[in-house]
Amino acid sequence: MPVHPMPPTPPTGPRADGPFRTNALGHLVATRAASMPQRGVAKAAHAVKQRLIGEPLATGELAHERIPKWKALAVFASDALSSVAYATEEVLLVLVAAGAAALVWGLPVALAIVALMVMVVYSYRQTILKYPQGGGTYLVTKDNWGTGPALVAGSSLMIDYVLTVAVSISAGAAAVTSALPALAPYTVAVAVSAIALVTLVNLRGVRESASIFAIPTYVFIVSMLTLLAIGTWRVLTGMGPVEAVASVAPPALEQLGIFVVLRAFASGCTAMTGTEAIADGVPAFQAPQPKNAVTTLWCMAALLGTLFVGITALSMHFHILPQHGETVLSQLARAVFGYGPFYYLIQAATALVLILAANTAFADFPRLTSFMAQDKFLPRQFVFRGDRLGFSVGILFLGGVAAALVVAFGASVHHLVPLYAVGVFMSFTFSQSAMARRWWTRRESGWQRGLAINGFGATITGIVALVVMTTKFTHGAWMVVVLLPLMVLLLLGIARHYDAVATQLAVPPREVAPLPLERARVVVPVGDLNRASLRTLRFAMGLSGDVTAVHVATDAESPARLRAQWAAHGLQVNLVVVESPYRALVAPVLAYVDTLEPERQPVPVTVVLSELVPRHWHEFLLHNRMAFRLKLALLFRKNVTVVDVPFHLA
Amino acid sequence: MPVHPMPPTPPTGPRADGPFRTNALGHLVATRAASMPQRGVAKAAHAVKQRLIGEPLATGELAHERIPKWKALAVFASDALSSVAYATEEVLLVLVAAGAAALVWGLPVALAIVALMVMVVYSYRQTILKYPQGGGTYLVTKDNWGTGPALVAGSSLMIDYVLTVAVSISAGAAAVTSALPALAPYTVAVAVSAIALVTLVNLRGVRESASIFAIPTYVFIVSMLTLLAIGTWRVLTGMGPVEAVASVAPPALEQLGIFVVLRAFASGCTAMTGTEAIADGVPAFQAPQPKNAVTTLWCMAALLGTLFVGITALSMHFHILPQHGETVLSQLARAVFGYGPFYYLIQAATALVLILAANTAFADFPRLTSFMAQDKFLPRQFVFRGDRLGFSVGILFLGGVAAALVVAFGASVHHLVPLYAVGVFMSFTFSQSAMARRWWTRRESGWQRGLAINGFGATITGIVALVVMTTKFTHGAWMVVVLLPLMVLLLLGIARHYDAVATQLAVPPREVAPLPLERARVVVPVGDLNRASLRTLRFAMGLSGDVTAVHVATDAESPARLRAQWAAHGLQVNLVVVESPYRALVAPVLAYVDTLEPERQPVPVTVVLSELVPRHWHEFLLHNRMAFRLKLALLFRKNVTVVDVPFHLA
Repeated sequence: MPVHPMPPTPPTGPRADGPFRTNALGHLVATRAASMPQRGVAKAAHAVKQRLIGEPLATGELAHERIPKWKALAVFASDALSSVAYATEEVLLVLVAAGAAALVWGLPVALAIVALMVMVVYSYRQTILKYPQGGGTYLVTKDNWGTGPALVAGSSLMIDYVLTVAVSISAGAAAVTSALPALAPYTVAVAVSAIALVTLVNLRGVRESASIFAIPTYVFIVSMLTLLAIGTWRVLTGMGPVEAVASVAPPALEQLGIFVVLRAFASGCTAMTGTEAIADGVPAFQAPQPKNAVTTLWCMAALLGTLFVGITALSMHFHILPQHGETVLSQLARAVFGYGPFYYLIQAATALVLILAANTAFADFPRLTSFMAQDKFLPRQFVFRGDRLGFSVGILFLGGVAAALVVAFGASVHHLVPLYAVGVFMSFTFSQSAMARRWWTRRESGWQRGLAINGFGATITGIVALVVMTTKFTHGAWMVVVLLPLMVLLLLGIARHYDAVATQLAVPPREVAPLPLERARVVVPVGDLNRASLRTLRFAMGLSGDVTAVHVATDAESPARLRAQWAAHGLQVNLVVVESPYRALVAPVLAYVDTLEPERQPVPVTVVLSELVPRHWHEFLLHNRMAFRLKLALLFRKNVTVVDVPFHLA
Repeated sequence: MPVHPMPPTPPTGPRADGPFRTNALGHLVATRAASMPQRGVAKAAHAVKQRLIGEPLATGELAHERIPKWKALAVFASDALSSVAYATEEVLLVLVAAGAAALVWGLPVALAIVALMVMVVYSYRQTILKYPQGGGTYLVTKDNWGTGPALVAGSSLMIDYVLTVAVSISAGAAAVTSALPALAPYTVAVAVSAIALVTLVNLRGVRESASIFAIPTYVFIVSMLTLLAIGTWRVLTGMGPVEAVASVAPPALEQLGIFVVLRAFASGCTAMTGTEAIADGVPAFQAPQPKNAVTTLWCMAALLGTLFVGITALSMHFHILPQHGETVLSQLARAVFGYGPFYYLIQAATALVLILAANTAFADFPRLTSFMAQDKFLPRQFVFRGDRLGFSVGILFLGGVAAALVVAFGASVHHLVPLYAVGVFMSFTFSQSAMARRWWTRRESGWQRGLAINGFGATITGIVALVVMTTKFTHGAWMVVVLLPLMVLLLLGIARHYDAVATQLAVPPREVAPLPLERARVVVPVGDLNRASLRTLRFAMGLSGDVTAVHVATDAESPARLRAQWAAHGLQVNLVVVESPYRALVAPVLAYVDTLEPERQPVPVTVVLSELVPRHWHEFLLHNRMAFRLKLALLFRKNVTVVDVPFHLA
């Protein structure tokens, strides 16, 4: 019986006092109650979630706040500034392997890195001025180089952010265990707990404007500057260290050479991670945004350079060597202050600022993945804002992957760092070269100067990226080299899937889709003739004139019994009995459906199932859930529509 | 638009060369191929299962074989005979706690138990003669006492069988670790592996006729009789033990008294477990069945009595005391043979016969649970025969619970035994008293003598059950006392559920079920207007004239865009937009469905879902599976029918 569309009847509308606010006819607005599960397990799960991360926020509550420069410095610079907690140590670790004499290269390497940073900052200054809406590497690269390079840049940024979390949190845990050696056996647990905490805080949603961010950053800056000042004063007045740090250099493992110095340079470049954060965050600044952002950028560079060079120089002077179980910064603080409140303040501030650095990645990574998911390169789930308006999927993904890395690498900064710097400098290079291309193609006023600056920046950072990759290749950078193309392939595959889906779902305007039921063959599995199966059969007969009831018989009596019931009820439906000598229930139904060849013929097959729904979940154990098993088995059959008619047991 | 049932069209039948053998029109017989999953994960899982337990067998292959007496003795008596491996030890363990002097009670207690056994066997002889179709306690009790007592008997039998497995396997593991002390730390692992093995063997299906059963039982019987003969000869010729077993009795912990003797008696009663096995298995005997079964029963009793009294007497003579790490039987074998091939043969035969004893429970328990499930006291899954014609669910359940018990009790026979004897003697009592009642009510010829025998048997076993429960109460029998009523309540609850379901599903003959769709209100959630959702809307319009499309909007643009598409396609379907400020997708649809009040009104609501089905399972990660989440959420909504229209992506 062909069924035709009918003109619409008036809607059976909701009551006025219902869970909706009605704006207009046919346009409702869900209240908060109507947006949450109201029953059962889902409600309980939602309550637990609310307890953890707070009440859901409406989309309209999304805040676009502006923050002053002094706060922006704290918010965006914590990542970069915190790198000084481990950068010096990484330089010294490389050099000391070539013997104590090699340590004289420590300061030159630190100065070279600062020079590099000045160039990069100068280069980013241009990006800020041209992309006041936020000059993230992915967007700038896509804008100027196109999709392919943007995907490489995006992938290296994703790696970069994951490693920011893993390295910062591991370094924070090292700061804690340096001060409290009793915690040393639990370093990995401390680090994973810190990641879990930061993840949870970000799921709750952190306003970037929160003043609470500023405190640890400024405490860190002030205490580091104090450390440098008092340390310098001790040096100038010829006083020795308060606590002797009697480190003996281990025997040289390799010969000092240009390669070792370059590797030390590559390790130290981790000090520059986070430099791009301010360029990413321009929209958060108070007006005039670009100008304020640039000022903040220079402040950050000045502070970072001072701290890095200062810490390196003082560490050299006090002959501090990397030690197992205590960070270089901890040794330096002991040398300058001795054990005491100020030493513990330094360690606490370092740990806190490192957690803030990880937090920066939790702001940047989900934003990046939401951009990439909008462009269909990542699953759509990354686009949706969670209950608290954060990109929950991105936040959870970052926390999970970073925690896995921390566990895999035993929370060792030293083993994570080789993976880190490659991604950072690749994204620097993409960002700067994209700017250079922009100058070249658009020829805006001052393009020659802009091109020179960004072109130089791109060249230098590109060379550094190559240096890092070469010198650190066997230490772990190879993983990035292997991972990056795989990630790009995955991103392209995802986009290809979405494109294919879109093509298949696209309809030309006014095309009328075929009526799938017009000639549908309907199959109704029937075990027993009861109220539920009778209702289901009636439903099926309403769907189509071609209804076949299929009875799978596992004993000798049931077919005759069913045929008798069939006659007693005067059922006008064709009944096929399938004897199942192997007592299988699901497979014979599937085999019967397959004989109708739904995959080859244009006429669809509709299977109408009768499903008993017990009142309590544990009662499910008392039924063999045939309907559920059939639904599962039919899920992948093509051209088969499944209709589930529930029969609710009281 | 109301839809009416149509007269049936000719069936769209299967092809002749399809997966069915057609017996008659509308009657197919599934081939083996049509009874197994043909694709995907299900196919792979089925292949693994086949590898483990073998090819499925057709129902017609169920064998009803008859076995001769000598084989029946091996098959049915292994449970009872194997108890001698631990019964003497349990008696001595109780007595020795009251000091070395108390050990003189060992032999009297053993003789009392044998006297009790003779009475029980005499009593069971009657059951065999009256229930040649198999006189299992549950059936006999149900037949004569009715449902309530049958459930108590059935529950105690279930406990009994589980403990048969746990105790026998633990005792078998003790026999192994006595001979190979290096395995002692792995006793629990050895026991659990043995349970897993027996479970797997039973899932494959064991023919009771298998001669392989007879071998270890007869080896055990012959080697035990040899042990007794040589031991007695050594005693009579005044020779001491080959290996001195210098056990020193521990200091007495309690005073010898009637209570201690009774407790020793209760412990020794575990020797009688398995006595009912022959009465259960009468149908498996060759004709004349009852006569042959009775002969076998007496043979078993004679052997069991001889072995138990002999082992106890010899152990007393050689002053063998229960030791940690070595069984009494192992010590006795060493005393008689010394370390050597014969000693190891005894230990191996003991371990094997104990595994066979556990195997007996694997035959009895699933049969009992299938009877009880047929009576609706257990989930229906216990009724179905698995691929190899065994009651797979019962087999797996028994293996799982027994393994859990073994782990919980550290494979300690001594700690398991107090739980064991209570259930055994309760089921003896139920069985005998049911026979007594049968004589009383039916007054068949010879009823006075029958009543006297079974009445006496019931009284004695009832007293023993009380003695066991009292003397072992604090040692673990309380668990059975707590568990038994809970089990009966559970069984009754299950039956009540099935009764309630049957009542709700029952239809008076020729009652015509209401057409649920005639005035159905249909709701179609629509995210986007595409080929899939258009198809789904067409389907919905075919179902009813009252179709409402519901669009949940999480951004400001989508409603206008959708309304434009609606107009472009000229869709004659009412569109309701639900703004979702909290970005919830599922809850607003549920809230909308609830405003239609499907739970209160007789008019059902049908939700028609459009489900994208990707080709590969991993592609599911790229979609947010709205349809799946809605199906899950709607599962428990009353009066809501869910129609799932799949759209298969290429």
